[in-house]
Amino acid sequence: MATSDPLKSWNDGPIKASIVEFVARVTNRGSSDHVPPAERIAVFDNDGTLWCEQPLQVQVFFALDRMKHLARRDPTLGERQPFKAFLEHDLKTIAALGKRGAFELAFLTHAGISEEEFEAIAHAWLEATLHPKLGRLFKQCVFRPQIELLDYLRNNGFKTFIVSGGGIDLIRAVSEEAYSIPREQVIGSSLKTRVDVQNGVFTLFKTSELDTFDDREVKVENIGLHIGRRPIFAFGNSDGDLAMMRYTLAGPGARLALLLHHDDADREFAYDREFKLSPLGEALDAADSYGLKVVSMKRDWGTVFI
Amino acid sequence: MATSDPLKSWNDGPIKASIVEFVARVTNRGSSDHVPPAERIAVFDNDGTLWCEQPLQVQVFFALDRMKHLARRDPTLGERQPFKAFLEHDLKTIAALGKRGAFELAFLTHAGISEEEFEAIAHAWLEATLHPKLGRLFKQCVFRPQIELLDYLRNNGFKTFIVSGGGIDLIRAVSEEAYSIPREQVIGSSLKTRVDVQNGVFTLFKTSELDTFDDREVKVENIGLHIGRRPIFAFGNSDGDLAMMRYTLAGPGARLALLLHHDDADREFAYDREFKLSPLGEALDAADSYGLKVVSMKRDWGTVFI
Repeated sequence: MATSDPLKSWNDGPIKASIVEFVARVTNRGSSDHVPPAERIAVFDNDGTLWCEQPLQVQVFFALDRMKHLARRDPTLGERQPFKAFLEHDLKTIAALGKRGAFELAFLTHAGISEEEFEAIAHAWLEATLHPKLGRLFKQCVFRPQIELLDYLRNNGFKTFIVSGGGIDLIRAVSEEAYSIPREQVIGSSLKTRVDVQNGVFTLFKTSELDTFDDREVKVENIGLHIGRRPIFAFGNSDGDLAMMRYTLAGPGARLALLLHHDDADREFAYDREFKLSPLGEALDAADSYGLKVVSMKRDWGTVFI
Repeated sequence: MATSDPLKSWNDGPIKASIVEFVARVTNRGSSDHVPPAERIAVFDNDGTLWCEQPLQVQVFFALDRMKHLARRDPTLGERQPFKAFLEHDLKTIAALGKRGAFELAFLTHAGISEEEFEAIAHAWLEATLHPKLGRLFKQCVFRPQIELLDYLRNNGFKTFIVSGGGIDLIRAVSEEAYSIPREQVIGSSLKTRVDVQNGVFTLFKTSELDTFDDREVKVENIGLHIGRRPIFAFGNSDGDLAMMRYTLAGPGARLALLLHHDDADREFAYDREFKLSPLGEALDAADSYGLKVVSMKRDWGTVFI
């Protein structure tokens, strides 16, 4: 029956079995763990969970190019840190800023742009820009097993959401095409916006003020704001996803939280505790006590990329 | 063909015709105004648009009862204004607070409650509480023509959202049952929340700090945050909905924005400029120049309530 396996890029083993068993339990009307479709909420982190985040998040690469654009208008930008590091692609200095520092700087390169302009810029960039190491378009640095998993969950009545530390608008520019997740099911970091009327036309502009940095406990608060319901399934890959996973597991009935461990230097990258832009330590150490299941890319995935 | 009319509670006339014509244009694949399903976003205000908001919004009635509960724990509450007005059902004093004043006070009665507790309280209240003038459950003070319109839009590939000045959680407690709109498609005012771990269980609590008061231009900003796409259809009933309607109309292609005018004292209520909790003046005066179509409850609706 291999040809009809909806999770064919997942190797057989305890992880794949736990996914299939969980879905069977919550969808079986005869099961005491049956969950009505409206409550089948699944949340996925994006960077490092649905697509590659090495050597930097896609978000940050996008900002490098935006920074170059801004530097053409203001040449003094390149003389100041941390902008200098961005302009010189000094990845080590960028990584040293930490996740929040690097991301907030990245988001600032979007300030003053209208919703429609941003979409056009992001779309053009995603259509044309190659990952520096993988040699494929960034938008194709997506993990095939996760695409299968998203489809599998949706085919079983789940509604799938992205809950990312990345900027909400960049993810929305790619989420429908890459993951079949509509824009309104993307939650992420964001700048505050303001409405402006130009030539009589109501338009929404990004400001430079951070609205939400969607990481750690804030992911849970934003799930409350956007979804208003405790998920029953969560998938992440870093300590930034831990609160969301523990919140998911804390409800009644059947629950599943998976943690992707990047341990495959041959096919993707191998990293965890030392990656400052998305560290993974607490979640690995406490996976058992928190009830997380650790997915090994090397062991559990038969194919990595789409 | 009256029996197969999906909008049978709408009287024939220019308004009903404009709805049917708009839906035909955006769904007809041969039309230059065709809109792909993912972009068929329809936004509805709630109070006064989908259900009755007189003599006070349901939200405020709910808060009156919460306030009584709080006063049992702190009897001095009843000696202070504006709490005294809430406790004494002094509707005139409450209305004088204006929409934001009255609503913020109402939201404060939810502070400190967990997501799950709030849902249980709201659900129990909605199951049992009668509208003081209409003599039916609050949750049944819903307008039949709007239920038909929501169904009609969804059957034509639209995704329907509520964008309300009311508290997001109270609406979510009723939206699936009353409107077939899932919780994650409700946008509203909200308090900030915080995650707390009690007995090892991750739980989300409401704080007393306002996160967003979802009115006027802020409705547009929250559409950007939650949906990330300009709607093509908007329905409101007050000046608080004007920015959202103008934002909807400002995009390219076919667009429709409807404004409900409560002019039916026999079947519901007749009011506009003088209702301080949800004034309607600018939108009525400028409807033509802004391109809004004014729906007269008296003229356009054959039936009012479900």
